[in-house]
Amino acid sequence: MTRVAILGIGLIGTSIGLRLKREGDDEMRIVGHDRYRKPLKQAKDAGAIDSYEGSAAKAVRDAEIVILAAPPQANHRLMEEIAGALQRDAIVTDVGSTKAMTMKHAAEVLPSTVSFVGGHPMAGSTETGPLAADADLFEGARWVVVAPTSAAPRAVRAVIGLVEMMGAEPMLMDAEEHDAYVAAISHLPMIVATSLYRLARGSEAWPELSLLASNGFKDTTRLTGTEASIAFDMYVTNRGQVVHWLDRMIEVLREHRDAIADENDEGLFKLLAETQHYYEVFRAGKIGRESQAVGPDDGAIGGYGFSSFLMGEAIRERMAEITKNAEDRLRETEEAERTTRRI
Amino acid sequence: MTRVAILGIGLIGTSIGLRLKREGDDEMRIVGHDRYRKPLKQAKDAGAIDSYEGSAAKAVRDAEIVILAAPPQANHRLMEEIAGALQRDAIVTDVGSTKAMTMKHAAEVLPSTVSFVGGHPMAGSTETGPLAADADLFEGARWVVVAPTSAAPRAVRAVIGLVEMMGAEPMLMDAEEHDAYVAAISHLPMIVATSLYRLARGSEAWPELSLLASNGFKDTTRLTGTEASIAFDMYVTNRGQVVHWLDRMIEVLREHRDAIADENDEGLFKLLAETQHYYEVFRAGKIGRESQAVGPDDGAIGGYGFSSFLMGEAIRERMAEITKNAEDRLRETEEAERTTRRI
Repeated sequence: MTRVAILGIGLIGTSIGLRLKREGDDEMRIVGHDRYRKPLKQAKDAGAIDSYEGSAAKAVRDAEIVILAAPPQANHRLMEEIAGALQRDAIVTDVGSTKAMTMKHAAEVLPSTVSFVGGHPMAGSTETGPLAADADLFEGARWVVVAPTSAAPRAVRAVIGLVEMMGAEPMLMDAEEHDAYVAAISHLPMIVATSLYRLARGSEAWPELSLLASNGFKDTTRLTGTEASIAFDMYVTNRGQVVHWLDRMIEVLREHRDAIADENDEGLFKLLAETQHYYEVFRAGKIGRESQAVGPDDGAIGGYGFSSFLMGEAIRERMAEITKNAEDRLRETEEAERTTRRI
Repeated sequence: MTRVAILGIGLIGTSIGLRLKREGDDEMRIVGHDRYRKPLKQAKDAGAIDSYEGSAAKAVRDAEIVILAAPPQANHRLMEEIAGALQRDAIVTDVGSTKAMTMKHAAEVLPSTVSFVGGHPMAGSTETGPLAADADLFEGARWVVVAPTSAAPRAVRAVIGLVEMMGAEPMLMDAEEHDAYVAAISHLPMIVATSLYRLARGSEAWPELSLLASNGFKDTTRLTGTEASIAFDMYVTNRGQVVHWLDRMIEVLREHRDAIADENDEGLFKLLAETQHYYEVFRAGKIGRESQAVGPDDGAIGGYGFSSFLMGEAIRERMAEITKNAEDRLRETEEAERTTRRI
């Protein structure tokens, strides 16, 4: 009989419970714990847990596997609560969205008789709570696994097995590496979305803007709906990386701004055409780069080696027009100057 | 018999044709024109146009209503091509995404015997071309109508009628007002999406980042897929407003950055909780503000009058914790300083 404790019964914790119940053997027993009673009842009704405990320490008492499924800082507090109650050889893992602080906290707080292996499923939803849970939430998603050198090999194997049981693909990674990546691919998009919505809503014209907002605005700002306490924990447990990527984002926005303000139309059009092209390749499922030599990755606007074989007929013609327009503008300016001199 | 000419047979032009054919009377005749032959054939096969012409001037010769359905700068060129061929009393409208330059161009180029009324449907897709067209594309969307004082009242009525036939809701607006609004709600999100994708893709870690990218990143960057020549025309025909909103976006990002870097955790959490709350109200379909007095619109982080009655129990508790954590940090720092002094 496998005994599992899930601490933190939200969307993720409940989805894990549902999946374990579906894929695991009949002997598996899952105890849930949450600081609130309502999600515990909902998760039990949904069949995601067999029973629940109001105390985290009680919930883990017989558990072979303990899953911390709260936001990072809440997981840290849970570690303190369960440290004295864990079985010898218990395997503890988490699903928090940052890893460096959590790995450090686990090393400090948990007894050396247990193994902590960090985890982070790269799947989620802005929906929250047990009622939004789905046994297939992690299907096909990457699930980062951070295994400290101190962890018992059987614990690492068990966590990888758990990830595979969820239908996800384990990716072994260093905690700092993970935190840098998620700052770029997850935390930055959240802040960008939130800032964009906040800017529009803060405008005096928001009544009109909200009328005109179509799916484009809604998709770009969707992550604004992320639960505040989850978002907050992500940022404050990953400050350095988040600030680094925000600084870079501001730089890229400034490049676009300058290209538009300075009428660098050739550079701007090239940038848009290239980026659109690579984006379509990305959305079609291509991972990584198709070629390191070609791409919008070598710095400033207009400095790209955009191969013309990538350009379609329409793009090529448009480019020629823009060049002609720029030349026309130049000629007009020169003529205007000549006229001015003549006067 | 109503004779309509649609110039520019892409997603929008073809969708208009399909809808006109479905909702209009059997006597309606639609002539299409495009600079390329392929979309004309596709639109004719789809039943969106009855016939097509390789020359814009020929296409409008008998038309009572002319719809310019290309990007803004292409519409300006089309005006020049058709100016001499338009029927007396013809009604000309467009679907371009900026309006001030287009209204000016129409006033300069089109003969005074015709009426130009600008238009902009607030609906679209990053998909392009006749094959992605849909007679229901505009259903329920706002469609901005810009009527210059020089336009004949019957022309304004006809364009409003056309908008209603599309299933959209006409919104009369001034051209400059329109351009300011779309800069915030449409052009800025496009540049933000493109910048975010470009930043991630430009990173050395893109192979890993693209593996880890989940739906959040994909939704936030979706507008990167907007056709480059459409995006380009939006920005260069609306430079002033786009630059203004980009400057404001950079400011808001910097506020978030500073709140995270400076450990202004109370301010940051309040901001996230408030913004998430209002965003949910917005996504639930509420237009405008529920109250002008309450909201994240009065400037800097932490300076809000966030009414506690809006906070749920969990949020209130989280807030108390964060305040306590900040106090703990302060006490630790003070203790550390005392210790240091003792040494």
